[in-house]
Amino acid sequence: MLNGEKKISRPLRWAMVGGGRSSQVGYKHRTGALRDNTAFQLVAGAFDIDADRGKDFGVNLGVAEDRLYPDYQTMFSEEAKREDGIEAVSIATPNGTHYEICKAALEAGLHVICEKPLFFTSDEVREVKALAEEKGKIVGVTYGFSGNQMLLQMRAMIEQGKIGEIRVVDLQYTHGFSCNDEADKTSEAQKWRVDPKVAGPSFVLGDLSTHTYYMSQLIMPHMKIKELLCDRQSFVGSRAPLEDNAHILMHYENGAVGTMWTSSINAGCMDGHRIRIVGSKASLEWWDSKPNELTYEVQGEPVQTLIRGMSYLDDSCNTDERLAALHQEGLSDAWANIYLKFAIAMDAKNRGDEETLKNLVYPDIDAGLEGVRWIENCVRSADKGAVWVNFE
Amino acid sequence: MLNGEKKISRPLRWAMVGGGRSSQVGYKHRTGALRDNTAFQLVAGAFDIDADRGKDFGVNLGVAEDRLYPDYQTMFSEEAKREDGIEAVSIATPNGTHYEICKAALEAGLHVICEKPLFFTSDEVREVKALAEEKGKIVGVTYGFSGNQMLLQMRAMIEQGKIGEIRVVDLQYTHGFSCNDEADKTSEAQKWRVDPKVAGPSFVLGDLSTHTYYMSQLIMPHMKIKELLCDRQSFVGSRAPLEDNAHILMHYENGAVGTMWTSSINAGCMDGHRIRIVGSKASLEWWDSKPNELTYEVQGEPVQTLIRGMSYLDDSCNTDERLAALHQEGLSDAWANIYLKFAIAMDAKNRGDEETLKNLVYPDIDAGLEGVRWIENCVRSADKGAVWVNFE
Amino acid sequence: MLNGEKKISRPLRWAMVGGGRSSQVGYKHRTGALRDNTAFQLVAGAFDIDADRGKDFGVNLGVAEDRLYPDYQTMFSEEAKREDGIEAVSIATPNGTHYEICKAALEAGLHVICEKPLFFTSDEVREVKALAEEKGKIVGVTYGFSGNQMLLQMRAMIEQGKIGEIRVVDLQYTHGFSCNDEADKTSEAQKWRVDPKVAGPSFVLGDLSTHTYYMSQLIMPHMKIKELLCDRQSFVGSRAPLEDNAHILMHYENGAVGTMWTSSINAGCMDGHRIRIVGSKASLEWWDSKPNELTYEVQGEPVQTLIRGMSYLDDSCNTDERLAALHQEGLSDAWANIYLKFAIAMDAKNRGDEETLKNLVYPDIDAGLEGVRWIENCVRSADKGAVWVNFE
Amino acid sequence: MLNGEKKISRPLRWAMVGGGRSSQVGYKHRTGALRDNTAFQLVAGAFDIDADRGKDFGVNLGVAEDRLYPDYQTMFSEEAKREDGIEAVSIATPNGTHYEICKAALEAGLHVICEKPLFFTSDEVREVKALAEEKGKIVGVTYGFSGNQMLLQMRAMIEQGKIGEIRVVDLQYTHGFSCNDEADKTSEAQKWRVDPKVAGPSFVLGDLSTHTYYMSQLIMPHMKIKELLCDRQSFVGSRAPLEDNAHILMHYENGAVGTMWTSSINAGCMDGHRIRIVGSKASLEWWDSKPNELTYEVQGEPVQTLIRGMSYLDDSCNTDERLAALHQEGLSDAWANIYLKFAIAMDAKNRGDEETLKNLVYPDIDAGLEGVRWIENCVRSADKGAVWVNFE
Repeated sequence: MLNGEKKISRPLRWAMVGGGRSSQVGYKHRTGALRDNTAFQLVAGAFDIDADRGKDFGVNLGVAEDRLYPDYQTMFSEEAKREDGIEAVSIATPNGTHYEICKAALEAGLHVICEKPLFFTSDEVREVKALAEEKGKIVGVTYGFSGNQMLLQMRAMIEQGKIGEIRVVDLQYTHGFSCNDEADKTSEAQKWRVDPKVAGPSFVLGDLSTHTYYMSQLIMPHMKIKELLCDRQSFVGSRAPLEDNAHILMHYENGAVGTMWTSSINAGCMDGHRIRIVGSKASLEWWDSKPNELTYEVQGEPVQTLIRGMSYLDDSCNTDERLAALHQEGLSDAWANIYLKFAIAMDAKNRGDEETLKNLVYPDIDAGLEGVRWIENCVRSADKGAVWVNFE
Repeated sequence: MLNGEKKISRPLRWAMVGGGRSSQVGYKHRTGALRDNTAFQLVAGAFDIDADRGKDFGVNLGVAEDRLYPDYQTMFSEEAKREDGIEAVSIATPNGTHYEICKAALEAGLHVICEKPLFFTSDEVREVKALAEEKGKIVGVTYGFSGNQMLLQMRAMIEQGKIGEIRVVDLQYTHGFSCNDEADKTSEAQKWRVDPKVAGPSFVLGDLSTHTYYMSQLIMPHMKIKELLCDRQSFVGSRAPLEDNAHILMHYENGAVGTMWTSSINAGCMDGHRIRIVGSKASLEWWDSKPNELTYEVQGEPVQTLIRGMSYLDDSCNTDERLAALHQEGLSDAWANIYLKFAIAMDAKNRGDEETLKNLVYPDIDAGLEGVRWIENCVRSADKGAVWVNFE
Repeated sequence: MLNGEKKISRPLRWAMVGGGRSSQVGYKHRTGALRDNTAFQLVAGAFDIDADRGKDFGVNLGVAEDRLYPDYQTMFSEEAKREDGIEAVSIATPNGTHYEICKAALEAGLHVICEKPLFFTSDEVREVKALAEEKGKIVGVTYGFSGNQMLLQMRAMIEQGKIGEIRVVDLQYTHGFSCNDEADKTSEAQKWRVDPKVAGPSFVLGDLSTHTYYMSQLIMPHMKIKELLCDRQSFVGSRAPLEDNAHILMHYENGAVGTMWTSSINAGCMDGHRIRIVGSKASLEWWDSKPNELTYEVQGEPVQTLIRGMSYLDDSCNTDERLAALHQEGLSDAWANIYLKFAIAMDAKNRGDEETLKNLVYPDIDAGLEGVRWIENCVRSADKGAVWVNFE
Repeated sequence: MLNGEKKISRPLRWAMVGGGRSSQVGYKHRTGALRDNTAFQLVAGAFDIDADRGKDFGVNLGVAEDRLYPDYQTMFSEEAKREDGIEAVSIATPNGTHYEICKAALEAGLHVICEKPLFFTSDEVREVKALAEEKGKIVGVTYGFSGNQMLLQMRAMIEQGKIGEIRVVDLQYTHGFSCNDEADKTSEAQKWRVDPKVAGPSFVLGDLSTHTYYMSQLIMPHMKIKELLCDRQSFVGSRAPLEDNAHILMHYENGAVGTMWTSSINAGCMDGHRIRIVGSKASLEWWDSKPNELTYEVQGEPVQTLIRGMSYLDDSCNTDERLAALHQEGLSDAWANIYLKFAIAMDAKNRGDEETLKNLVYPDIDAGLEGVRWIENCVRSADKGAVWVNFE
């Protein structure tokens, strides 16, 4: 049970690159990082590509004016000169900039938290991973939904054999907000997402499905994909080659099969993010639209609905509990959960506490690497004509 | 609105082959056919491969003892001698027998209603279709779920452009009742379903997905599959080569894509039969587990739930209404709806009323043909290693 | 499991009074009675106050023209002269006529099935009950929803102590179809319902809540109301003194409390018919809008959803099973279940089989009496100014 | 849309009385107050009746050790001496202590935020209200659920006539966590709640129903209760005279009627907090268990589900939006919303900005007064034997 008491000796001094006034995701980072004020303190920022707007915004967040910088390069160099300079930075900028900023942050001796998808290529991730190791720094990736503790309940139940051997993995992350091309033309947030130079080799594969793919790995860490097939489309033609819809078939090493549907043209869909794991005895299912519930279906028995906060849940799940059962938690709580773990990881890294790091389950750079690999394999299959490819 | 009043001048004299005491589906045929007593009259039967058990059963249904026959051959020949002999017969036997019985029935001058999947090969269906045309008889196929009138509402709304151009077709018919092999050994109904000699080239593709595939055609008759890819598995190994799980990807001629998941090993799943059609503006979704509802989701508007029996529904939907809104209809009502249409078709055929036949929407032999083609194409793709094949 | 096989030696010869072409409930009677053709046979009728319309309708149902009568009196006297005359009659006429027709039917030596609410006063019911006993006849009451087998599951679980001691009974039967007075002026079916001379002392109390009250007695036969308080309103003023909305508080003899909300002005409500029973350990809840499910909530455990047709259900529930799990049953199945029990009761009465009668759970004349008592007590409380009254 | 930018010139210096380590509600206060760090700053505390434990806890929250006090009296006097002393205090102690602490805080020149139910009697509230006015201070009451913005959508739609004239108000706040007396003996949080000396004249009426009653006033501010009737029970007998279950009937001045069911013995119930408002044309319904949705049912039209964050919602609703549609908000967001409004109110009061205060909708001392009046009237009715009493 989390009640705001500190988990590390003092909050880390933290800044953001991007995530300014018009950013939807920026607030999620701040509300996650600053929850309880015992994990991070917001002390600096380069919030906006428009320096004045970024400064104005930072002042409104309560950041001292002299620590609001026109760009990340200036922030990293100026903060490095301060005794009380930043220790960690979150990157909430368009995809195409992650790689450079991440490297610069690590070079500046900072822990990093970065938006997904991490970079354009897995080689870039491997390079940055090596750099992070060299510098002794953490790189976390904000798969924000993965902070929902019911996913840890799924993980525990699967590990305990409650569903038997896994046979089918059924994943979906879809919505309909891009079912026409209006936003492509008017919304800054949407424009870059369909521009390969900024978004990278994919639209919804990276923007949506990497979340769900990571969540599937979180709940069944032993399951490895052997080969997959990805069929992608650009229903709004101007988005080509970037897809706004894709279906993926997966073959796992243990013989299980899986599917992923990711889409931003699932018109009208308001509950299209879900995970179902089918085992030989039972299934588990979680919907993002009712995040406090988990369905547990044992063949031949009544359907069970498990509710967040109840004492029958696994300890690993209830460790992240904040509000108690019947009191709905949501996405801001999930982000708070992963940001708290980022802080714990950074603090452990600072202290050389490898034991803590080994046992801490959170979206680290390997999770970021897996996400980029996922995209690469999907795109490779799709570009060959939706054929089976080995998962490389 | 249906209230039991006759739609044809008199009920047709009707018999069953199969569907005896231990048959689950036999009752669905009878309850569908005999609803209201204005479409069919049960006057004869060869209900069971065990002649005595079949006779005992028929007597208990109220059939005259002298019209309970040891086998279909006898029934067809004996009834043909009677002035008041049967005019139509339903075939509710294992798949492998459909073809011979159907042909015999048509040769005997009977209209036919047959269980799905119709036959093993589409060539057989084409042959029987020619025979039926020659004999001037109807062959109906019992895609029973398709009698739910909310599907006609979907059909009307799609035809009226309420969802825009179709982009994604998302189909699922899964359950978990065969997630282990126990029933394969003990249940007569299950045993033959996993025996290729009796079941044909597929298990769940034929047993389950043909229903949903037909329903998709019913609601969007203009949508044609261009190519598909089927990946099938036998999670219970003793079922191989017959699959207990399959995923299919479809490419439609208009550029839309589709998926079908069919499975009998979806452990614990009690609501795994559903259809979602995504258009460029909106989506429609129907779940067999809540058959009186239809979800209509227009992007950017509140989600709408349409309820069976309400006056805002299309006339084509409300024509099949029986109980009025708030009064739940179920699968027995759906079967009654299609059996009523079989009777109307047979009566029109008898009278040479081609106008009625042209406008009547029901699962006819072409629907049966499509189901067999669906299986053939899926199996062909799967057997080649889950590759794309043209839909032939 | 019901599959249409006969439960009595031969179907009873049956007729209807009322329930003609424009009647919504008439079809429910016929579809219930004639399901499977092994319980009742429709052989005569006085379907309509307009004799010609009634005859035309009856012919369309397949009844012989000479057994379609202009009124019930003629039917009872003419049928009595026939060797193969009717043995049972269903009364589906406006409330105000039930008493006279019931008496006449019993005097004519017929078993009776009558719409609810049975009569205007409990004294009338007691009188008719005595007459039925004298004549050795059954009087059944069509609380149609009560045929849903999940209610028998609730009954069994309560009897087995699965929820502990009952503390709170939470009942609701509401809809919004009369939220304005339009139908009062135009619909025949609605007009008489708000006319005290025809409807009796109540509108929704009789039309709706008697169903739910009976269902509550069915599932917890040991629970007796000690006192109640009813607050009723006529939101559409022209309906006064008949109510279109009422709330009732109940005190049971064992210390439990209860509430009933009944209304026809619950605007837009499409799922307003439900029953929740709260015990000291757990609760059970059933919604008419999802009739194949039952929620079982044990405090401190995952919520359980029980599904119709599953083998974990009680035998008393599965006895009425027809279609097997996953195949939705609806209201027509429920009516078929109670009509089958009416037939079994009549047959047992004819044979003097008191053992069968003792064990048969169905809505008999005592259930009808309880419904009228319920209305009387509610109206008495309401008319005194919504005060507590002893349940007399 | 809220993104963390300041709404007042600087955060207010804030402390807590109570809400220590074992308190469930304490965290909700802190997470609400400290969200975004632009409304309040936690600078002092008297968190626990056990001074050492309270100090240890406060240190863990990051409060300076010298501002962690053994009791509220010391805190108020010591902080008053500081230049940077606290400006506002939240009271999260058992009910029986609210009145004294509130008065002391106001006397010390502090703005106050207090748990519900505010005090034992409405006279006490009136006295404290006068004191607050005299001192020019705000008293806010933490009806935390009321911060959910979908309630503002209900308010706007009702005000705009979207449901017509209100006829029925259907309120429920129930759970089953106290269905046996175990927690009464072992849990500190539960023990005092069933002790009249500490809890006041009610258990669930105060603990639960005051929330829902306030929410009903929030969404329909023009609706005034004329008379009510309350029937309360102590199913766990040792709780008497305090009730663990109550049903209330209400008559509103405009002729509408209402019901409230509040209970802590609704065994197993995990979704028992809801509000339904029935108008002459349509109804609105909100469930705490799915707080991001609102059901809008117009009679004769498809049921509509409105989703949080969508642009079709009223501006007054979307003003409090934080995460954007599809991203679930929960109770911590709701608490953040009301705490932000407390800060805005305090700041406006400090600046003498009556215009802002007039337009700000939040749970102020009048809301607190109404809650206590509600309890008083309920208890008065119940104690007279569950009779109708004028709402005084």
